[in-house]
Amino acid sequence: MTYKIAILGASGYTGAELVRLIASHPSIEIAALSGNSKAGQSMAQVFPHLRHLDLPVLTTIADVDFSGIDLAFCALPHKTSQEVISKLPKSLKIVDLSADFRLRDPAAYEKWYGNPHGAVEIQKEAVYGLTEFYRDDITAARLVAGTGCNAATGQFALRPLISAGVIDLDDIIMDLACAVSGAGRSLKENLLHAELSEGAHAYAVGGTHRHLGEFDQEFSLLAGRPVEVQFTPHLIPANRGILATNYVKGDAQAIHNVLEKAYEGEPFIEVLPFGEHPSIRHIRGSNFCHVGVVADRRAGRAIVIAALDNLTKGSSGQALQNANLMLGLPETEGLMMAPLFP
Amino acid sequence: MTYKIAILGASGYTGAELVRLIASHPSIEIAALSGNSKAGQSMAQVFPHLRHLDLPVLTTIADVDFSGIDLAFCALPHKTSQEVISKLPKSLKIVDLSADFRLRDPAAYEKWYGNPHGAVEIQKEAVYGLTEFYRDDITAARLVAGTGCNAATGQFALRPLISAGVIDLDDIIMDLACAVSGAGRSLKENLLHAELSEGAHAYAVGGTHRHLGEFDQEFSLLAGRPVEVQFTPHLIPANRGILATNYVKGDAQAIHNVLEKAYEGEPFIEVLPFGEHPSIRHIRGSNFCHVGVVADRRAGRAIVIAALDNLTKGSSGQALQNANLMLGLPETEGLMMAPLFP
Amino acid sequence: MTYKIAILGASGYTGAELVRLIASHPSIEIAALSGNSKAGQSMAQVFPHLRHLDLPVLTTIADVDFSGIDLAFCALPHKTSQEVISKLPKSLKIVDLSADFRLRDPAAYEKWYGNPHGAVEIQKEAVYGLTEFYRDDITAARLVAGTGCNAATGQFALRPLISAGVIDLDDIIMDLACAVSGAGRSLKENLLHAELSEGAHAYAVGGTHRHLGEFDQEFSLLAGRPVEVQFTPHLIPANRGILATNYVKGDAQAIHNVLEKAYEGEPFIEVLPFGEHPSIRHIRGSNFCHVGVVADRRAGRAIVIAALDNLTKGSSGQALQNANLMLGLPETEGLMMAPLFP
Amino acid sequence: MTYKIAILGASGYTGAELVRLIASHPSIEIAALSGNSKAGQSMAQVFPHLRHLDLPVLTTIADVDFSGIDLAFCALPHKTSQEVISKLPKSLKIVDLSADFRLRDPAAYEKWYGNPHGAVEIQKEAVYGLTEFYRDDITAARLVAGTGCNAATGQFALRPLISAGVIDLDDIIMDLACAVSGAGRSLKENLLHAELSEGAHAYAVGGTHRHLGEFDQEFSLLAGRPVEVQFTPHLIPANRGILATNYVKGDAQAIHNVLEKAYEGEPFIEVLPFGEHPSIRHIRGSNFCHVGVVADRRAGRAIVIAALDNLTKGSSGQALQNANLMLGLPETEGLMMAPLFP
Repeated sequence: MTYKIAILGASGYTGAELVRLIASHPSIEIAALSGNSKAGQSMAQVFPHLRHLDLPVLTTIADVDFSGIDLAFCALPHKTSQEVISKLPKSLKIVDLSADFRLRDPAAYEKWYGNPHGAVEIQKEAVYGLTEFYRDDITAARLVAGTGCNAATGQFALRPLISAGVIDLDDIIMDLACAVSGAGRSLKENLLHAELSEGAHAYAVGGTHRHLGEFDQEFSLLAGRPVEVQFTPHLIPANRGILATNYVKGDAQAIHNVLEKAYEGEPFIEVLPFGEHPSIRHIRGSNFCHVGVVADRRAGRAIVIAALDNLTKGSSGQALQNANLMLGLPETEGLMMAPLFP
Repeated sequence: MTYKIAILGASGYTGAELVRLIASHPSIEIAALSGNSKAGQSMAQVFPHLRHLDLPVLTTIADVDFSGIDLAFCALPHKTSQEVISKLPKSLKIVDLSADFRLRDPAAYEKWYGNPHGAVEIQKEAVYGLTEFYRDDITAARLVAGTGCNAATGQFALRPLISAGVIDLDDIIMDLACAVSGAGRSLKENLLHAELSEGAHAYAVGGTHRHLGEFDQEFSLLAGRPVEVQFTPHLIPANRGILATNYVKGDAQAIHNVLEKAYEGEPFIEVLPFGEHPSIRHIRGSNFCHVGVVADRRAGRAIVIAALDNLTKGSSGQALQNANLMLGLPETEGLMMAPLFP
Repeated sequence: MTYKIAILGASGYTGAELVRLIASHPSIEIAALSGNSKAGQSMAQVFPHLRHLDLPVLTTIADVDFSGIDLAFCALPHKTSQEVISKLPKSLKIVDLSADFRLRDPAAYEKWYGNPHGAVEIQKEAVYGLTEFYRDDITAARLVAGTGCNAATGQFALRPLISAGVIDLDDIIMDLACAVSGAGRSLKENLLHAELSEGAHAYAVGGTHRHLGEFDQEFSLLAGRPVEVQFTPHLIPANRGILATNYVKGDAQAIHNVLEKAYEGEPFIEVLPFGEHPSIRHIRGSNFCHVGVVADRRAGRAIVIAALDNLTKGSSGQALQNANLMLGLPETEGLMMAPLFP
Repeated sequence: MTYKIAILGASGYTGAELVRLIASHPSIEIAALSGNSKAGQSMAQVFPHLRHLDLPVLTTIADVDFSGIDLAFCALPHKTSQEVISKLPKSLKIVDLSADFRLRDPAAYEKWYGNPHGAVEIQKEAVYGLTEFYRDDITAARLVAGTGCNAATGQFALRPLISAGVIDLDDIIMDLACAVSGAGRSLKENLLHAELSEGAHAYAVGGTHRHLGEFDQEFSLLAGRPVEVQFTPHLIPANRGILATNYVKGDAQAIHNVLEKAYEGEPFIEVLPFGEHPSIRHIRGSNFCHVGVVADRRAGRAIVIAALDNLTKGSSGQALQNANLMLGLPETEGLMMAPLFP
């Protein structure tokens, strides 16, 4: 059986990544593509790398015919997403890639995103989309909220450790190297090649990055008490990939054991042998996440490093993985392609 | 039915690219991998991006058991390749990615490669592996010689034009921008990141590049008279992709018509609308080749630009396309993945 | 003696490059900086790499006090530049980096730039700013029109050859690899790191690039007859540098001899030994231009390759070189810094 | 007066950087250049970006005539350096860029470098070359040991804080993003453009990086008790620059005050306004170090970020700054060039 899906917001990078992935998916068909600012254009005009595909023309959201569509991916900016989703048919399954339904507490949403939540009722039914940890809920869900890409990376490294109680919850430092596609196709001076190339700088330093809302929510829930990590993302001159270097206090070998056990049988999470650690060049374009653990020279301290592709496992690949579950398809369908290297 | 293949020389970039592609192929299974200098290692050690795959350990070529293997890909250096292939079972189908069997004339081989050919008898049965132009021969062949990556790019732009007689054969200038993976995993100062990044330079200037042997052979054959193009490759700071800018004398619109007709129905060759031209960022990691034609301001002159991924359509993707034909499989099987962008 | 200068349009890349160069100049002092859209900001805010310098705050052009200023650099967009310069004191020496005064024929200006020229009288006194070829005129000039960066690169390769009559004037093909800073600090999708990095594409293909106006004007003047070159620039993923690969018909050795003689004693033009050719990584950040000549395998054809830094020798370095002459200073003052490598 | 210097090991990146800097120095002249593996070649052959300079031909060290030479820069590999320096004239002033004389305790040297020190007597007279903190000793020294480039970056961020007692000495985490030229011109697979570009990975994780020897020595000395920081360097796809993100416990505003006061009047150290932080793109090719402080959302925690160019302020610029002092020249001579951006 083939399911029909729509992608709302197909003119951004995560939208294009969804098209790339679904184009090879045996059981899902793209029935509609929207992109308000580019309505009327073909995907080949907006994304020439997709020109070999026979795709619907981009329309406005208003012009999408949702009858016959099983599931919609919303790759829209936050705030726009909640407005759009409020008006979609209630029977439609939805995977939202924006930040709008990630935070369960509307007050937390307002704190991190600066505006009151406009679809509180819908938010109540949203399931947090970190597949490996919310698999059953996602399978049963109508609305799944895709995670932040940094938030996914950090959680793959730390969730099992917090659950298992093997690290000090008051001294977690998460230092990220983030490739530039995570910032989207936005026209900003610091995203220009001439500025970013040969550069490297931190951003949202000191605890102002919005993905902290997700860390606070999820880690506190796991720990049963408030957990506030330190989190500093850095922008580096690469297109895809997040490398999260986590400094934790705990026994490195015990930490490795916990991770190995937690991810045993997981198709997309690869725990490296103890002492090895990952590189973003080895997960590019794939849905895999590599996690490594190294003991520090100081006893009782460890470095846990996770790497994934922000556009794939960090957003659109995760979204498709969730959609597979929601549609009753095998979770890995269309997602097992190997990374592109070099 | 599943066919079993071996990859000889799996520790280089084209070997790894074959593994990447075949890992998603529904009808081909990797039965053996050799890499003499890395024998005994796992592919995960040599190429960590492949660590999620269950692959045979690397062995020496001598240790490969060819019984039960239907086809071998040889991704070995030239000269080594002819020595190895001479000793392989005569029943084995072979796709060779080296330069050893591309040139039909042993004298031409010696001229361009500097050593006498050591397997002249085998060379006689080799079919030149530019799939779109040698499809029937390849389907029937036991030994197919994969083309040079630059040679493929230039031929996709020019072959139909030479056949149709729409361009001046004495004034063809081919100017290439080549990404660095084409140089292989070789340890040379000018391939270091610190040297190549922020650089751009020509190489093999003036008609010394070995792929000219292929152009001379093929274009002269098509034209029925000697054709010698001018050809200057440039190394640019990118990992994958070849952009061939061809300066020809002829009517641009006629040229475009010829190309459109020549590639009608071809699954991998996309001729862009007249006046548009391609970028390597739009074919990365895929088996597609984009071709565009623009008229020059001077009447009777045109610019024909072709773009492909040197590791995929330029070598390993082409090799798999040929193997599909040789094994009686659909030509496009395992090769329709969309390019990776950004 | 110290001369005082103003930089109008200091918030773009060429403006910042002028500041970088003049900051180390022993006889020139920066008295005023304008940048209308950033007026009121310090240069450290707009260009943090200049934060160690004690510089005037950015003002509007209207707020610049030109009394006491000896020379103004105008690093403004074309069209704006002619409007601004029309209103500047007639006693002020001016080096204009825009396209506004490069073309002597107002009709040619209108053809290439799309609008009628608005300062025809002033244009009459403008001297074309290719220092090595207009040295005496520049020394005596009040207004010097800096050349296009691509135009400079191509002319360094070809002017002496056209003058000496050693190449066929009807078959000149100029193929350029251009780094991205030449496009300025403009917010365009194709200049984003995520789009440009790992990309390479031609632009203004077929004879539509505006710098052709300069080539046509200068080459025809030199030849005493119309000369129309073919010219295809390519954007590559690097920040600084232009590599111009010129395909000409003529005797390579004679061509090399002409270039060596033409540039004998020139402080900034380095003619490489016969058969060698340059790379942009070897001129980065400097005022040098490297030129090389290689014979093609086909008799009577040669490849002439020139490399320079578009922001330095291609614009701001050239501008300072001209200003030195106009102020009676040694031509090389403040410009002999070595390239930055790696 | 002009001083004559020799550069031993001029065929590596730090050697070439010394030549670049000294070429513009008004009071220092390059009298000899050695490079054993490239002896007999000109610098233009080894480093074409220096072809405009009139430089001595590379010789072996044995062939350098040290009479008349005031100071030698040794840019040799560690271990080789101590052997060479042992045999140099005792009257010669020496700035060593290797690791051989950085650690005062021979046991520490052996621990970090794996071999017993072979020149213990000479080591006793070596002064640690972090100019801003050892200025008087360096002025009087015969032998100065240049610091590690990572070691310099971390110390600029942390030394004043340790001295002032404003941070917790037991919880210092230093996370570095390092450009690739720090690895030198060495032929390693992971330094190839095809591998490093689009990559990012940690190395020497867990406290095994040799520069920790310097941190341990210097920080413990300042604190009067053992201090062991955690230190994880990451390799990023850029050519020049180190960004050190330091996680410390202490009052952010107090930390900023200490740094501002400590670096008041320092010509090369720029402390950014409170809350701002640096990027490596703003110090490229210069001798400046930018330092910023941001308060974390968690009270009592701060992030201190320092950026410098590993080849300039991190090695060759520092070496020249020290040489200026040793020769009685103004400390900043030849070093005030602005960074290259973009």
